[in-house]
Amino acid sequence: MEQPILQIIGVLHGDIISREDAPRNFDESERVGTLEIYPEYQEGLEGIAPGQTIVVLFWLHKSSRDILKVYPRGDKSKGLRGVFATRSPARLNPIAISELKVLAIHGNHLEVSGLDILDGTPIVDIKKKISR
Amino acid sequence: MEQPILQIIGVLHGDIISREDAPRNFDESERVGTLEIYPEYQEGLEGIAPGQTIVVLFWLHKSSRDILKVYPRGDKSKGLRGVFATRSPARLNPIAISELKVLAIHGNHLEVSGLDILDGTPIVDIKKKISR
Repeated sequence: MEQPILQIIGVLHGDIISREDAPRNFDESERVGTLEIYPEYQEGLEGIAPGQTIVVLFWLHKSSRDILKVYPRGDKSKGLRGVFATRSPARLNPIAISELKVLAIHGNHLEVSGLDILDGTPIVDIKKKISR
Repeated sequence: MEQPILQIIGVLHGDIISREDAPRNFDESERVGTLEIYPEYQEGLEGIAPGQTIVVLFWLHKSSRDILKVYPRGDKSKGLRGVFATRSPARLNPIAISELKVLAIHGNHLEVSGLDILDGTPIVDIKKKISR
């Protein structure tokens, strides 16, 4: 099979500008920001409403992609672990999954809370949330 | 930014061979199968244990990628909805997210349950599960 190529559908605007300032994960964050979806894809947003929790996939364009073992949360006391047992941003395909609350929608801009992602990060998908 | 290119890390072996036979989502499925992770990435699995629920990202290589509106669950009575408000497999970047229970691990093969994905589908990532 050919290697899949992702299409960027938008970009995140927020106030997290360094790894050091980023919450560890969405479940530990109340940081707010805006998902700008490019106008050509705005139609795909119909049906999303304020108050919903949505699942957003980001492409972590600044992450290393050649790492198979990491120290979980940077803590060296527990030893190295396989990346697939963690949510480390460094991984072969650096796709982050965030569950974000929709605060408001203005055309192709979604205000959200729960961000743990750097300002300027490309967005690749939004989905309805379900859970087991 | 250049368009991101995904690396396939493995392939799913299961008994779901048609859309018609596939459960609607992982939360409605007890179907079992095997995640074969390619040997060069096996090291990344260290730390995953039987009994855990893992988050698995699949690349739905047979899906349409040019669709922005869908009938949710194929039900035309409710009208069209934007793909980003759904979990339709047809979407610009057809990445599926499944939460799967690990039944057993044999080297680079993970037996899992909860599958809603077709046999032969490429795997692009595995993550630890967290939820809000």
